[in-house]
Amino acid sequence: MNTVSTTQLTGALEWRYATKAFDATRKIPTETWSALERALVLSPSSFGLQPYKFLIITDPATRAKLMPATWGQKQVVDCSHYVVFTARKALGAEHIDAFINRIAEVRGISAESLKGYRDMMNGSLVSGGTLSKMIPEWAARQVYIAIGNLMTSAALLGVDACPIEGFEPDKYDEILNLKNSGFASAVCCALGYRAASDKHASLAKVRLPEKDLIQHI
Amino acid sequence: MNTVSTTQLTGALEWRYATKAFDATRKIPTETWSALERALVLSPSSFGLQPYKFLIITDPATRAKLMPATWGQKQVVDCSHYVVFTARKALGAEHIDAFINRIAEVRGISAESLKGYRDMMNGSLVSGGTLSKMIPEWAARQVYIAIGNLMTSAALLGVDACPIEGFEPDKYDEILNLKNSGFASAVCCALGYRAASDKHASLAKVRLPEKDLIQHI
Repeated sequence: MNTVSTTQLTGALEWRYATKAFDATRKIPTETWSALERALVLSPSSFGLQPYKFLIITDPATRAKLMPATWGQKQVVDCSHYVVFTARKALGAEHIDAFINRIAEVRGISAESLKGYRDMMNGSLVSGGTLSKMIPEWAARQVYIAIGNLMTSAALLGVDACPIEGFEPDKYDEILNLKNSGFASAVCCALGYRAASDKHASLAKVRLPEKDLIQHI
Repeated sequence: MNTVSTTQLTGALEWRYATKAFDATRKIPTETWSALERALVLSPSSFGLQPYKFLIITDPATRAKLMPATWGQKQVVDCSHYVVFTARKALGAEHIDAFINRIAEVRGISAESLKGYRDMMNGSLVSGGTLSKMIPEWAARQVYIAIGNLMTSAALLGVDACPIEGFEPDKYDEILNLKNSGFASAVCCALGYRAASDKHASLAKVRLPEKDLIQHI
């Protein structure tokens, strides 16, 4: 594995910031975007279940509809790629079965040999376990792993990003025809390249003092 | 900024997996670990508020206590560094004020000039906004950004990781003296180096078909 240096990693993370103004004329090149989509697909999730779907919005008309449901934030229309992270609203034994079948298919083994894993997931997520009572929230948390992964991946490739929690999920679900899909919009991320005019880019990064954030035990 | 190539990024993400067995004799070098702590500090969060604290557990006695509260998973004691992500249980105007003062300090401006930002955060998170009714969950989601960021950062540095949701938060909070701290344990991550014996390392990675995960609009 071709690792990166520690300074390359922290340099990218210092460089990133929540981009307030995108250069609407710059698009993310196809190869770069493909890698970021691959990063989304490879995002880790609880049990590997991936209880989400990523909507990549490039259609200008759809974005124009989403902007007023995003407190008018211009990143929605000015960025190169706009990602809406949707999370499963419910999880049934059929989803677990589909996942088990997928494992069997990819690894060339029988679904029967995965019975223990299936039963464990069903017990935890479907039939009365703690998580079964909080599926939408459990799924949303997995989505947040994915957006964390995406923002870090983007920074390493020199792509700017702005995570967006300030939007109206109900309106998004309506505009994106999610009402009967089993998924609901959870969080968004605008990606592209910062505008030269974005003065937020040069502001000093603010973090709490390390002693308040990290404790060694 | 010294960006990484797309193949370097996706190569690292393909390389990573939820490590089931760590080589207990291998420790993460200081410089590498410092970069990962820096990645934690630099993790993006809602409004920049960082409603969390990261506990880095290296003390063997504490780890031995945590293992039985982690369904007996051996990664807790065998990994190099064990991170417990804790999230704020409540948020008050005093936390917003502390953050505003921190911005003022870092950027050399007056806290008064940030009144609009403070009022906006108070409105949303403290005095009756939607988020004010779900602070523990809002905080937990920010924690999940951090663990997503950490897992991706670790992979790029060639460090193995295993995210751990299977643990008893109440017992963790007791063992780690969190009961009156304002924070509660939310998720964990073991980091270090895979054991040569971990047969999970060579299993084919399973993801849902791309058409089920990604939709272009």
